[in-house]
Amino acid sequence: MSAPQHTAAPSPEFDLIRRHFVRPMRAAALGPGDDCALVSPSPGHELAVTSDMLVAGTHFLPDTDPRRLGWKTLAVNLSDVAAMGATPRWVTLALSLPGLDHDWLAAFAAGFFDCADTFGVDLIGGDTTRGPLNLCVTAFGEVACGRAVRRGGAQAGDRIWVSGQPGRAALGLAELLGRLTLAPAARADCITALEQPQPRVALGAALKGLASAMIDVSDGLLADLGHIATASKVSAVVEDAALPWTALDAACSDRAAVRDALLAGGDDYELLFCAPPAADAALAALSARLGLALTRIGHIEAGQGVQLVDASGRSMPVARRGYDHFS
Amino acid sequence: MSAPQHTAAPSPEFDLIRRHFVRPMRAAALGPGDDCALVSPSPGHELAVTSDMLVAGTHFLPDTDPRRLGWKTLAVNLSDVAAMGATPRWVTLALSLPGLDHDWLAAFAAGFFDCADTFGVDLIGGDTTRGPLNLCVTAFGEVACGRAVRRGGAQAGDRIWVSGQPGRAALGLAELLGRLTLAPAARADCITALEQPQPRVALGAALKGLASAMIDVSDGLLADLGHIATASKVSAVVEDAALPWTALDAACSDRAAVRDALLAGGDDYELLFCAPPAADAALAALSARLGLALTRIGHIEAGQGVQLVDASGRSMPVARRGYDHFS
Repeated sequence: MSAPQHTAAPSPEFDLIRRHFVRPMRAAALGPGDDCALVSPSPGHELAVTSDMLVAGTHFLPDTDPRRLGWKTLAVNLSDVAAMGATPRWVTLALSLPGLDHDWLAAFAAGFFDCADTFGVDLIGGDTTRGPLNLCVTAFGEVACGRAVRRGGAQAGDRIWVSGQPGRAALGLAELLGRLTLAPAARADCITALEQPQPRVALGAALKGLASAMIDVSDGLLADLGHIATASKVSAVVEDAALPWTALDAACSDRAAVRDALLAGGDDYELLFCAPPAADAALAALSARLGLALTRIGHIEAGQGVQLVDASGRSMPVARRGYDHFS
Repeated sequence: MSAPQHTAAPSPEFDLIRRHFVRPMRAAALGPGDDCALVSPSPGHELAVTSDMLVAGTHFLPDTDPRRLGWKTLAVNLSDVAAMGATPRWVTLALSLPGLDHDWLAAFAAGFFDCADTFGVDLIGGDTTRGPLNLCVTAFGEVACGRAVRRGGAQAGDRIWVSGQPGRAALGLAELLGRLTLAPAARADCITALEQPQPRVALGAALKGLASAMIDVSDGLLADLGHIATASKVSAVVEDAALPWTALDAACSDRAAVRDALLAGGDDYELLFCAPPAADAALAALSARLGLALTRIGHIEAGQGVQLVDASGRSMPVARRGYDHFS
């Protein structure tokens, strides 16, 4: 007896998932399509787990290119995994969508999987639902047991380092919001830093055993350094003259905007870390191997808090330390 | 030299997390407060991972009691873990909140941790941000390697079983929406089924080795059974007379509403599973041990799709099979 009205035709929701978000697994025992995915960390490794939610209007401009948004949605989570010294392996993606726009979804998925393929990550599951645009990723990395680089390990005498060029994303956002005009040669670079940040996955993994404490710069350089200082129960001293100003000054003639972007601008996803002086040579070699600038921006002392100091060691005022969603 | 403007006073966002969402860990190497949490599955076990997102207006009424909403936000994820036969261990929670309402948050957290404590789960991390109300949980269970109960194992000759009393949540929702009036004796029970569902964690774990295929009823009994039929490449035959109608008929005199609630109502989070006849005695003993009804509602045949049949084996029409967010 046939009952065609009851055969399991694919629903629009399952069709959406299958069309845009199901790819072959690299390293999961079971991927999307059941109640749960199944994964196992490698022997001797533990899992590093993080969740980040991106909301339209809060984390990205509503008209952001969906392909770049797909990249960024994953990249900001991989950055948290990298900041533990872990290697990203698997992610879940939960999406709330105002409607079913297959062109938008195809572009979003292309950017998401571009990032996933770049860093060798499987999308193992998730959820799709209707509602205001909201993107929530949970990412899983693996790290040899006991070797994760936490925020609480900085010690007096350590040096403070930052990768790449923080501040570009904040300048890119200010340009898009019409608050300033960037030099033509720097405009695309700053907007790309905002919309398609590079999670420092190789750097993070290589800093295991070198860095004493690490965080990624998502809320602002001084704010995120404050989390290291608090967790490590130390004072972090940032030397103003040591900060990487040159490229930002070339990009933008508004000195106050440049200062705010570098000191308090989030969204660059560079790694900020502490390491003893004995690590200097290894860090120089690592920087050369990765083709990625590592800048020594200060040092750790006994005490508490974060201060910015001038060439004479005098404390300098800071207008803003970073971003808080509820201040 | 002191620089009080730079000391790391707790930000409103971190204060929110610490006040409402940080509890001692049962079994995580590292909980909230760093870039990632750190966890390890027990030796010989793999991880079962699921994400569910709840959106105001789509998954719950905007005026839902926040304590019950906290419970449900976690419970629906633990149900997915249970439906694999896995034991829930850890969860992350990402929240988008329209504002900072500490009373609402305290009630939401109380319900969330009530559920977490009931099922022995650690909240290991997450994210808080500003935006339309959206709650996203990722849950991790552990299950002995290779022993997870998937959707694709049903075989011709298996019996189809469902736990508890599916359909109550749909009747509770219809009552809250003013679409029908329930019998006074059943009203609170149906609304509790909707707002504070019981994930069948003990049942799910006990069904390893007994059930050939399993899913939780979230979208609707026939729709979710369709997922088993599709994954198992079999036909699922539901016998109308075998379904647990009695309690629903006592709760509601609207026969069409009762039929729709039991056949297509989601949100009960009962377990729907298949098992060979040889498992009958073990299932009866399990039902008695857990104090939880297990009802045999049909059987598996060769073929495909899901059909509902009357006492003569004739196919019966079905108005609706379940819920789809994008149909």
